[in-house]
Amino acid sequence: MYDLLITGADVLQIEGGAAHVLPRHAIAVAGGRIAAIAPAIDVGLARETIAARGMIAIPGLVNAHAHMAMGLFRGVVEDVPVEEWFNDYIWPLETNLTDEDIYWGALLGLAEMIESGVTCVADHYFAMDEVARAVEESGLRANLAWAVFSGPNEEPTLARTARFVERWQGAAGGRISAWLGPHAPYTCTTDFLARVAVEAGRLSTGIHIHLSETADQVAQSLAAHGKTPVAVAHDAGLFEVPALAAHVAHPTDADVSILASHGVAVAVTPKTEMKLALGVAPVADLRARGVTVALGSDGAASNNSYDMLEAARLVALLEKHTRRDARTMPIGEALALATREGARALGLAGVTGELREGLQADIVLVRHDATHTQPIHSQPATLLYSARASDVDTLIVAGRVLMRGRRLLTIDRRRVMREAARRAARLTSRRSDRRIAHYPA
Amino acid sequence: MYDLLITGADVLQIEGGAAHVLPRHAIAVAGGRIAAIAPAIDVGLARETIAARGMIAIPGLVNAHAHMAMGLFRGVVEDVPVEEWFNDYIWPLETNLTDEDIYWGALLGLAEMIESGVTCVADHYFAMDEVARAVEESGLRANLAWAVFSGPNEEPTLARTARFVERWQGAAGGRISAWLGPHAPYTCTTDFLARVAVEAGRLSTGIHIHLSETADQVAQSLAAHGKTPVAVAHDAGLFEVPALAAHVAHPTDADVSILASHGVAVAVTPKTEMKLALGVAPVADLRARGVTVALGSDGAASNNSYDMLEAARLVALLEKHTRRDARTMPIGEALALATREGARALGLAGVTGELREGLQADIVLVRHDATHTQPIHSQPATLLYSARASDVDTLIVAGRVLMRGRRLLTIDRRRVMREAARRAARLTSRRSDRRIAHYPA
Repeated sequence: MYDLLITGADVLQIEGGAAHVLPRHAIAVAGGRIAAIAPAIDVGLARETIAARGMIAIPGLVNAHAHMAMGLFRGVVEDVPVEEWFNDYIWPLETNLTDEDIYWGALLGLAEMIESGVTCVADHYFAMDEVARAVEESGLRANLAWAVFSGPNEEPTLARTARFVERWQGAAGGRISAWLGPHAPYTCTTDFLARVAVEAGRLSTGIHIHLSETADQVAQSLAAHGKTPVAVAHDAGLFEVPALAAHVAHPTDADVSILASHGVAVAVTPKTEMKLALGVAPVADLRARGVTVALGSDGAASNNSYDMLEAARLVALLEKHTRRDARTMPIGEALALATREGARALGLAGVTGELREGLQADIVLVRHDATHTQPIHSQPATLLYSARASDVDTLIVAGRVLMRGRRLLTIDRRRVMREAARRAARLTSRRSDRRIAHYPA
Repeated sequence: MYDLLITGADVLQIEGGAAHVLPRHAIAVAGGRIAAIAPAIDVGLARETIAARGMIAIPGLVNAHAHMAMGLFRGVVEDVPVEEWFNDYIWPLETNLTDEDIYWGALLGLAEMIESGVTCVADHYFAMDEVARAVEESGLRANLAWAVFSGPNEEPTLARTARFVERWQGAAGGRISAWLGPHAPYTCTTDFLARVAVEAGRLSTGIHIHLSETADQVAQSLAAHGKTPVAVAHDAGLFEVPALAAHVAHPTDADVSILASHGVAVAVTPKTEMKLALGVAPVADLRARGVTVALGSDGAASNNSYDMLEAARLVALLEKHTRRDARTMPIGEALALATREGARALGLAGVTGELREGLQADIVLVRHDATHTQPIHSQPATLLYSARASDVDTLIVAGRVLMRGRRLLTIDRRRVMREAARRAARLTSRRSDRRIAHYPA
């Protein structure tokens, strides 16, 4: 007996960098996993059925770098350079955040992601017990890292984040994994990074870090350490454990070799990187050299959304534009970055990110019956270049339906929106002189 | 007595390149125009009222370069170089189009645009009587140009398009303007361009043309004529009348001077230009030199949508990225390109593109109450960077409500979708050996 049967869907398959659909297929789910994908499966064998005729079934999208609660600051500062963005706005404002704010901010981000087809998120922020609680309630899959900086409290902070890892690793029925989150080489001393690496080894976990966000950061690192941020992280031992590096917008040739040989995944966040003028990683080049590249939103204070279809579309457009080659980053590859490669980056290859028997049933149904998606000559093209997050109809994680007909089933949408609006006003009405860190100009 | 009163909307105002809203204002409409914008207007004075509390009222978006009926080919060919795209797919497939196909394709595009907040479109295609008929029925505002190429039939074709201009200029209660549409210098001889220029002068109308789409086109023009496509068009006399040039992705310094001094507007279509790797015009530079820049979608065969919020977002992101300056193309400027500057490019400055008393009542109401748009710290930021076309709730052109609560009032959505799907199959099932033109490799 199956727990759930999806019928009549066009089922997206991505092999290598090529996408196609299995037309009008059924997907059977049992024990939270995909039990079968076939042209027809008897509905009598399933406890629950979802008729998906006219919809495309896709692997749940993976957001490989987010700061969910930053949605509370969405639009608070725009059109300023990144050092001003951090030092004059975001880092002072973040000192206003309470644990409860972060809980509600995370729920807001989770609601938006469910509505946008995201089934798995790598979140890197503070008060991560609150975020984990929100993730657990929402039903999403998540990789959670508690951001730590060097400073007078670095030891107790690291100890606290280690306890967070122990507490949440494998929690929520295995949906949550917990990694360490050293913020970046420009906010952490090399000694501290080395201690984080040792701690990650002791905990048998991974690390999620920001690297080489701007050309200035690379220049400053070379001046201070005689090596790039990637080399600093490597030499501190951070790449001896599974590692996920956000941005890496300015890798040197040697950096790419380090990333490839140590299996360090790069999470590119094209909208933030373009909007803050950070530069964007050379995605096709990195992939050609064997680096795993995933896509992220970054926080919605910079993005200003958690729309991973938009991220996939953006990275395809930008790669074609930058390389002046329309053949670069074909549709299947862009969709793979947002799904299978995202899973791989989070250590979840073979667990999620594909629609295959045996994998977790992380499935999204997208309507393709709107004026902006009709007529259809190619379902993958329609998905990447015509569809919108608003076309996501149904979302399933580990076999559990979290949204159906765009109705959220695990999150009280109205309450979350009310809490977010109420907190947003307070969070920005008092601007403290404190900052959580300093961004070098 | 007002015909229509919108109450409680946050009303978008763009002054120069800065955007703000008039919070909770009313907009009164009479005789198709905006009669008043004020904090409160007595609902007893209006025949019809739309309560817009929680929505932002924006000037209708202007799509300054489209080939609407190409939506029928959405997704038919992807990830190939532009010469292959034209010569092996699009131009052979377009020979299959009947006039009736173009009518239904145009209606599909118009439906999508209404649902996406577009109130005015500059369309450049074939069988434009059919397109004009669709525009008239839809209630949209449009600038229509019948594309012409050099060839054995150039004279009768030009004569036919001249009759089209005479027939439709000022039609549909002034909503339609009709210009001539010489396709491009690479598909029209200079003699023919000169005859089009004379004809435009005789008809007191403008011209809409493609210029300098790729670096190769500029090189080929220099080789063939000793001058750039912009100079060819100028020397043919095309800039003696109002002129709208699509793309202009590779202007020389001298080109920019010509465009600025002759008031030639440039329609940039960022998604197509990135996707086909054509290159994208240096928008901020052009504007700094006094060139009017508008935004377009291009056809949905390349775009693959008619989403002008996406176009505005893309151009802002790309300018910031290209110039490595987050201050470039601030929110108000990007929104101005999609509204006021679009109107200016189509000769409609002071007619549409702004929410001001006396202008045509081309008004769009956008919901900002979704998880992806909450909380709001800045309505213009929310609109440009967080909102989606699907958040458009209500659309009004010349005081007439064309969509309310996302329900189309002038187009039979289901019939259009059915016709589009039915025709799409036939249009691609037979591939002829004929092409409508040849793209130089």
